[in-house]
Amino acid sequence: MKEFDVIIIGAGPAGIVTAVTVKKQYPSKTVLILKEEEKGLIPCGIPYVFHDLDSVDKDSMGVKSFIDLGGEAVTEKVVEIDKEKKLVITVSGSEFSYKKLILATGSVPFVPKFLPGYNLKNVFYIKKSYNYINNLFGELKDKKNIVIIGGGFIGAEVAEQLAKFNDKSVSIVEKEDLCFSKAFSSELSKIATEKLKKANVTIHTSTSVQEIIGENGNVVSVKLNTGKELRADAVILAIGYLPNTTLAEKTGLGLNEYKAIIVDNFGHTSAKHIFAVGDCSETLDFLTGRKDRIMLASTATSEARILGYNLYGIRIRNNFTGTIAVFSTEINGLAMASAGVNDNDIPLINLEIISAKYTGVDRHPGTLPGTSPLTVKLYVSPSDGSILGGEVWGGKSAGEIINTIALAIQEKLSVYTVLSYQIGTHPLLTSAPTMPGFIKAAEIALSKINNTKTNHNT
Amino acid sequence: MKEFDVIIIGAGPAGIVTAVTVKKQYPSKTVLILKEEEKGLIPCGIPYVFHDLDSVDKDSMGVKSFIDLGGEAVTEKVVEIDKEKKLVITVSGSEFSYKKLILATGSVPFVPKFLPGYNLKNVFYIKKSYNYINNLFGELKDKKNIVIIGGGFIGAEVAEQLAKFNDKSVSIVEKEDLCFSKAFSSELSKIATEKLKKANVTIHTSTSVQEIIGENGNVVSVKLNTGKELRADAVILAIGYLPNTTLAEKTGLGLNEYKAIIVDNFGHTSAKHIFAVGDCSETLDFLTGRKDRIMLASTATSEARILGYNLYGIRIRNNFTGTIAVFSTEINGLAMASAGVNDNDIPLINLEIISAKYTGVDRHPGTLPGTSPLTVKLYVSPSDGSILGGEVWGGKSAGEIINTIALAIQEKLSVYTVLSYQIGTHPLLTSAPTMPGFIKAAEIALSKINNTKTNHNT
Repeated sequence: MKEFDVIIIGAGPAGIVTAVTVKKQYPSKTVLILKEEEKGLIPCGIPYVFHDLDSVDKDSMGVKSFIDLGGEAVTEKVVEIDKEKKLVITVSGSEFSYKKLILATGSVPFVPKFLPGYNLKNVFYIKKSYNYINNLFGELKDKKNIVIIGGGFIGAEVAEQLAKFNDKSVSIVEKEDLCFSKAFSSELSKIATEKLKKANVTIHTSTSVQEIIGENGNVVSVKLNTGKELRADAVILAIGYLPNTTLAEKTGLGLNEYKAIIVDNFGHTSAKHIFAVGDCSETLDFLTGRKDRIMLASTATSEARILGYNLYGIRIRNNFTGTIAVFSTEINGLAMASAGVNDNDIPLINLEIISAKYTGVDRHPGTLPGTSPLTVKLYVSPSDGSILGGEVWGGKSAGEIINTIALAIQEKLSVYTVLSYQIGTHPLLTSAPTMPGFIKAAEIALSKINNTKTNHNT
Repeated sequence: MKEFDVIIIGAGPAGIVTAVTVKKQYPSKTVLILKEEEKGLIPCGIPYVFHDLDSVDKDSMGVKSFIDLGGEAVTEKVVEIDKEKKLVITVSGSEFSYKKLILATGSVPFVPKFLPGYNLKNVFYIKKSYNYINNLFGELKDKKNIVIIGGGFIGAEVAEQLAKFNDKSVSIVEKEDLCFSKAFSSELSKIATEKLKKANVTIHTSTSVQEIIGENGNVVSVKLNTGKELRADAVILAIGYLPNTTLAEKTGLGLNEYKAIIVDNFGHTSAKHIFAVGDCSETLDFLTGRKDRIMLASTATSEARILGYNLYGIRIRNNFTGTIAVFSTEINGLAMASAGVNDNDIPLINLEIISAKYTGVDRHPGTLPGTSPLTVKLYVSPSDGSILGGEVWGGKSAGEIINTIALAIQEKLSVYTVLSYQIGTHPLLTSAPTMPGFIKAAEIALSKINNTKTNHNT
């Protein structure tokens, strides 16, 4: 039986970043990754496999960086954890002993067993599995009518990619009145949904699926609650993910009401010497402290760094508890991003926020070739001006500007601070120094706050 | 004589942002801008007038946003300020009385009167003047051999643009051993200089100009200290700017050793009711507190917001004193940016810094079309891990990533904080969640710090 100081189960972003971080920080420790498949996939790249990459291998992600540091990797599914003996047992019966065990088992697509037809042939899910996606990649090649159930990020991005093929007819069925509404404000969800329509995706919102209808075990159509029936050669279910915690549950680790492994700020589970990180572990909303169901690779890797650094002693503090949930995407050439709260969150916690929006351009002068519009919207507490959320959309730089806003949220900065924020600007790279979106939106927010107070001008 | 609550002299970025901010924050105040030319120019856009915009008017910037708020503007040069009577007198003899006066008179190109030939015909400067640049735009059209003296941002950007014309031969004479060395580290200055060479600019570094030689009053060549003579149909001198403070000096305002108007954190000059902002006012280095000579539109507009908000009472505090000096540019398709200190600053203050560099890509997977390399380099204090400077180069998103780093510098964040920083990532917009440049560079910095200390691993 091989013995290791640290065993990590799972080789997704959380597993790999934890493994690399531990091995770098504590090079004398022996570290093993146990993974289920030979090749891994970059999860957020999966939608782009179907068109822009036109290849599954181009989206693959391996453990080479970890092996190069002296780590070991074995491809075998773990079926049991013996907490007392501190060992894990694989499907082939191999045993590996650990001193510290880290679960980075990720998440699995939600399978609606209550939905008739959910298991017909040509009904697919977006599993974060190389083998599964490789098969799906082949299967979808000759499918003409594709119905995607669920208009969140994964469903929408896969739809946008498949709709780039002229010979495919792609539709989305979404039970909410807009796509992306779990992450984006109503305003941005509407913009995103319209953009998706312009990308030749037919969208049925405020609509649910009653049945996936098959003939001879093969899907032929999707029956909606409106009575309509959509012809379907393939169906993709993209209605969310669940923490992959069957093994954790079997091991007796504490799970929360969403079946996520309960962890503290440093990834400790209810069992001594066992840690969890990423999608399989509990996530809290940064504002409310309530459990939420955000599963993002970027959040997972942040947790992984904190766990990796601190595995043998607290080296970096996790002063900021909870996830800000920074999302970004690009649909049909429009980049869109969000961080923290937006107006959809108001009813959840009786939130007092004001929103402030500024639309400019991402280059200056705006007459330069390649200039795109750029909008920054902030969600700010009217009592102290603190920035609780933001959205950015327009040109590609939205994907980085949202990260500046995320840092401001994380550091509890207010619009007062942002107003004296020093930035760099350049014609070919950014907005003009006279109208940077983040700062202009902060100005508007402060004006709104002041308008609700007595005016003390002299 | 017209009376105003606030008079602002100058309509560059500092003047306009101050004017708009004052008028928005204190709408009942009467505000006048006095400017010298009918049309203004976006200063950082000037190099792009010559090729990418191929138009001066496309780079113009007016006072419309200020007029729309109820502000007034008059185009007349101010020749005198009467501090006692609180009025300004223009070249035509018109008088305008003020309660508060703001000088936003900007900067003017340094004219080396000691250099023989500095005033020959076809020797030009990059004045931030619509009329001057409009004339230069026409003059350069038929010039074949153009010699640019000075390889800082302005000289290099103008050279890059002019070299895009196949019929022009463009060279730079730079007295330092690399271009851009005032703003960039030696590593990045070298990369930038090489990139400029590949853009068909001939560069003479470690070289100075002995004489600009003319025939019949017209420039014909530039004589270098190496003995070499460069044929020249036009010469552009781009060797820096001086604060435009002739009027301030005449008015008896306190000036520092660089002839910049001395101001406090809120823009107050030595004279009651007179304020100064932007290039004409004093700038301090954020780290040393020493006077420096940074002149950036982005710094100027930050000062302008602080002045505008606080003109009738301190509404936003300027907790961060000094300029971080956030620069960005793009040369021949390579975006480059810097903020704060770099290794060139070490001798200035016996600075203890470690540098940490990470090179990745700006999309993920890196196999996506349009992916560019992206490097982040941080300069960090080894004693407390605080981030004192950064550089980013590669794809266009460098221009926004440097602003996140600038915010980290301004908020005095350390690499410890950055390691738990939550970001958003997306294949088409950013690096992978497993390897975001800013965070990876922070990791490397921390490893370097730890390597210099006793290892406490257990």
